[in-house]
Amino acid sequence: MLGKLVGVGVGPGKPELITIKASKTLKSVDVICAPKARLHKPSLALTTVKPILQELERPPEILELVYPMTRNLKILENVWESNAETILAKLKEGKKVAFITLGDPMLYSTFIHTCKTIMGKCPEVEVEIVPGVTSLTECAAVSRTPIAEGEEVVAIIPSSIDLRKIKRIAENADTLVFMKGTKLLKELPKELAFCGFAESSPVILVKKSDTSREEVKTGRLGDLQNWEVDGNYFSTVIIKRR
Amino acid sequence: MLGKLVGVGVGPGKPELITIKASKTLKSVDVICAPKARLHKPSLALTTVKPILQELERPPEILELVYPMTRNLKILENVWESNAETILAKLKEGKKVAFITLGDPMLYSTFIHTCKTIMGKCPEVEVEIVPGVTSLTECAAVSRTPIAEGEEVVAIIPSSIDLRKIKRIAENADTLVFMKGTKLLKELPKELAFCGFAESSPVILVKKSDTSREEVKTGRLGDLQNWEVDGNYFSTVIIKRR
Repeated sequence: MLGKLVGVGVGPGKPELITIKASKTLKSVDVICAPKARLHKPSLALTTVKPILQELERPPEILELVYPMTRNLKILENVWESNAETILAKLKEGKKVAFITLGDPMLYSTFIHTCKTIMGKCPEVEVEIVPGVTSLTECAAVSRTPIAEGEEVVAIIPSSIDLRKIKRIAENADTLVFMKGTKLLKELPKELAFCGFAESSPVILVKKSDTSREEVKTGRLGDLQNWEVDGNYFSTVIIKRR
Repeated sequence: MLGKLVGVGVGPGKPELITIKASKTLKSVDVICAPKARLHKPSLALTTVKPILQELERPPEILELVYPMTRNLKILENVWESNAETILAKLKEGKKVAFITLGDPMLYSTFIHTCKTIMGKCPEVEVEIVPGVTSLTECAAVSRTPIAEGEEVVAIIPSSIDLRKIKRIAENADTLVFMKGTKLLKELPKELAFCGFAESSPVILVKKSDTSREEVKTGRLGDLQNWEVDGNYFSTVIIKRR
């Protein structure tokens, strides 16, 4: 009999922000697949769940799968293909497999494509999703900054999109949340000024280096040019219209 | 000494989607404040945390606070004021107070205004936020529908805003998430067509009646006119551009 695939959101990287359901799921599966960007670097998602696995007498098998951070579609397709095959082999052995992702499995996660590839190969696989706390709300929590109230509109923007698209969406949004890095940060003060964001608009940057360290910066849109920032993928930026 | 105020997101209404941190917090506080819309209706947030409180030998004091669903600012300000006073009185007794909200405390929650009002009266109050799983990702999870991948932009839209504003934001977004109700649902197929959303664009509606019942509907934008929907506040709708 085919095993079941569970996409498990483990939250923004703090073990205590894992849900009770995710914790129970991870304790009940045969295999945990953990994505990571580089072969010789630890998986942040896996580090996050370590305290839960340590409680177990017979911990599940761990499969660390490399998903290189590239936009080269040829490389990506090969990776999705081979990682999907690895997972599918476990499912065909009848094993229950959890695929863990930082944040939520349905929001910009490596699980989405991997799951689609598996379903393409074997449509009968049963899939369950366990939602997780996203960096969006974690960023708001650590800085104690409301994301939106009343009739405010929030735009979630992957940092890799081009400035023209950012400007078009910013014109009609009250809160901008940039996820997956901080590439264009220094250009934002000038560009967002055209969209009605004053220099005094509040900005929060939360940068995660690993699961135990996070850097929180708060300031104004006008200050952004002077901020030391790198292209860290695990950064989230909230900008509120003022 | 002043007590501490903790805004605790309890997730979308399922006890298992509470985080470990939220659970620990609720077990450690002296008072739990639970918002509800009507005096004689149960608080959904409180119902969600009941299983956690049942484990306790000495459960915390429960304060149910009524926040009527009105847009009348005069009424709202009076409510914020009196509820803030109630909470502040507990803080001044040195008590640790949790204010629970469905979803996340920083995203369209009654906690935001209440906290601001308390801080306005007593700026020394220490505030901590425990983020929660939002209905956004819960809706994606139960329907197994990805919210966004790659360079897709997501717009979170409170259902109460007017159609013109919805159209302006929809023009530049790939995924629309309507929160806090479904007021304009029947008008969306026609209006979103102008924004490049085809009739075949996938739509997911998740309606929560109470913490144990939820209704999940999936279909196409073109079908929306035929859906039986009411103005239920705890509904979330995801529409994906196609």
